[in-house]
Amino acid sequence: MGSRDRAGSAPMNGGSPATVDKGVDFAQYFCTYAYLYHQKEMLCDKVRMDAYFNAIFKNKHHFLGKTVLDVGTGSGILAIWSAQAGARKVYAVEATKMSEHACALVKANNLQDVVEVIESSIEDITLPEKVDVIISEWMGYFLLRESMLDSVICARDRWLKPTGVMYPSHAIMWVAPIRSQLGEQKLNDYEASMEDWHCFLEDTETNYGVDMSVLTKPFSEEQGRYYLQTTLWNSLHPHQVIGNPSIVKEIDCLTATMKDISEVKSHISSSINICSQLCGFGGWFDVHFRGRMEDPAQEEVELTTAPSVEGNTHWGQQVFLLHPPVTISDGDNLSVSILMTRSKENHRLLEVDLGCKIFQASGRQLHTLEKKFYID
Amino acid sequence: MGSRDRAGSAPMNGGSPATVDKGVDFAQYFCTYAYLYHQKEMLCDKVRMDAYFNAIFKNKHHFLGKTVLDVGTGSGILAIWSAQAGARKVYAVEATKMSEHACALVKANNLQDVVEVIESSIEDITLPEKVDVIISEWMGYFLLRESMLDSVICARDRWLKPTGVMYPSHAIMWVAPIRSQLGEQKLNDYEASMEDWHCFLEDTETNYGVDMSVLTKPFSEEQGRYYLQTTLWNSLHPHQVIGNPSIVKEIDCLTATMKDISEVKSHISSSINICSQLCGFGGWFDVHFRGRMEDPAQEEVELTTAPSVEGNTHWGQQVFLLHPPVTISDGDNLSVSILMTRSKENHRLLEVDLGCKIFQASGRQLHTLEKKFYID
Repeated sequence: MGSRDRAGSAPMNGGSPATVDKGVDFAQYFCTYAYLYHQKEMLCDKVRMDAYFNAIFKNKHHFLGKTVLDVGTGSGILAIWSAQAGARKVYAVEATKMSEHACALVKANNLQDVVEVIESSIEDITLPEKVDVIISEWMGYFLLRESMLDSVICARDRWLKPTGVMYPSHAIMWVAPIRSQLGEQKLNDYEASMEDWHCFLEDTETNYGVDMSVLTKPFSEEQGRYYLQTTLWNSLHPHQVIGNPSIVKEIDCLTATMKDISEVKSHISSSINICSQLCGFGGWFDVHFRGRMEDPAQEEVELTTAPSVEGNTHWGQQVFLLHPPVTISDGDNLSVSILMTRSKENHRLLEVDLGCKIFQASGRQLHTLEKKFYID
Repeated sequence: MGSRDRAGSAPMNGGSPATVDKGVDFAQYFCTYAYLYHQKEMLCDKVRMDAYFNAIFKNKHHFLGKTVLDVGTGSGILAIWSAQAGARKVYAVEATKMSEHACALVKANNLQDVVEVIESSIEDITLPEKVDVIISEWMGYFLLRESMLDSVICARDRWLKPTGVMYPSHAIMWVAPIRSQLGEQKLNDYEASMEDWHCFLEDTETNYGVDMSVLTKPFSEEQGRYYLQTTLWNSLHPHQVIGNPSIVKEIDCLTATMKDISEVKSHISSSINICSQLCGFGGWFDVHFRGRMEDPAQEEVELTTAPSVEGNTHWGQQVFLLHPPVTISDGDNLSVSILMTRSKENHRLLEVDLGCKIFQASGRQLHTLEKKFYID
């Protein structure tokens, strides 16, 4: 699940998944999903819808006569498809009042004998049985924003049969060097903001007799974080990708542990394929529906959020901008280190420590940079 | 305190002030005030700043050698002015980490011997003494959004001396009939949204075999509430006011009780002064700095947020739009009933039941309407 109007925006409350206050988590995160408008945005993402639709209906053998758990059912769409594909029983769990609409939708499509909608967080449910399939659309921006995979893993560990399959079965995170005009825009915005600040300082001293210059440093840091260090949602065109994309994380949804997904730590290389400016990096993900080794998909389906000429998904890509950009040449090589961790203030948000060394084709090091980013 | 990027946006948690969860209140409301950018927006409101500056410095007798409590000090500006006006001691209370910046600002202006910054909600503090003055900039959109006056009253009841004064001393809420193009825009947006919904229904049935028509009614209600029933921030020009403004509430900050301010219930009349369309109503407020009867201001100051040719304050006005607008004539009379109460989901947000009867100058009733609004 990803959306431009994304949940989890006010990063002022901390705690790990185990300790976070439920009321606060609801106020900061879950509440957006209670709106039909938000659900519709996701239901209108054709790439997303086609992938799940095909994954289910081209692999009916996983559903026919089986039991299914839909984690975070939202409008109920995946639960409904699972039932239509022949499931014996579908438990559709939804933490928000959207569950009431899911219930109505199930009835309106004559599936109330198969689909049971449960209003609850997944961590709190009790089911009468373990299930054959856990299906969920849990992906946030750059895969892991929102940290919903935590809940899917929790559900898997409690409710998936030893022979069960995960839908999706695998997830991969990609990073590539990009060019983009956004960096210059954001730098201009930041500089305009600081210029305005200095006028404000002058006015406040002159008109109101208060010297606010001691706040310049924290204001600059706050604005810098906002304009220059916060990743952006963007819809990249493939020609903005200026070097080969690299995998920074691979997740097997059947076996991944909470520890495995608590951070992303990777070292990648990328060869530049064009003389241009390195404006930053783009991050995206794929998920795959492969079933499991002992019970594979008959037809594997992939949902990719890579930059696409046909138009991107509602997830777009996450863009990590460098200020200023760095001039690079065809044949240059990048050596990039990425460490992505949970934000201490809000476990559903992420922080990224990115390091990049740029080498000429000859091996001579041209440039080195380090930057911290926030995925808010 | 009002700002376009206003706190208290996600109305999904209920409770009265006494019962609301502090963590949730912080996540939904207080957090915005921890940003310097937000404080700066308020500090750049010249009308606001001039009013408080003049109220204090033209009435130094209220401050010289006195004790002051600044409720919700933010950046500390009012506390600093109070000290510069000669206060013996100022307690500057701020619930967010903005208190750290207030502290730095106090030191940078050499007032640390007078101003003590306390990081706390006002309800939780203990002071060594009662104070001569309570000063606060607590006003939200249409005065009462954010319900911060609750906290000021709590502070007053606990910490103001029997002889103490309130800054501001009085507040008045106004409503006037208006014309505006916004109503038509919002109606178009709503209709476009519903048209898009019907295409979506068709696509979802055709491509994905799910009948979502049962969600049309709740979607329409959700969109209707969003586009047609949610009040808007707007910067009105005086010529948009098409009938005499009327007072709907008067508050004496020295004596008002929590019960007094828990709702606004009023019946007003307004004469239309132009042939036009009644597009809705505008709401705004004034506050006054009059001191108290036994210890009045030497120079009374008023802060008004009425529509102004010089440009409005950051509070703008709150606009209650009617769809469709009603054609009215010069000389027509409006009889308007208003009942404004706290939202059950979030006590810092408001709901308004508005009723309006339109009469010709002859007394013949032309029109009657009733509408519920949400101040989110």
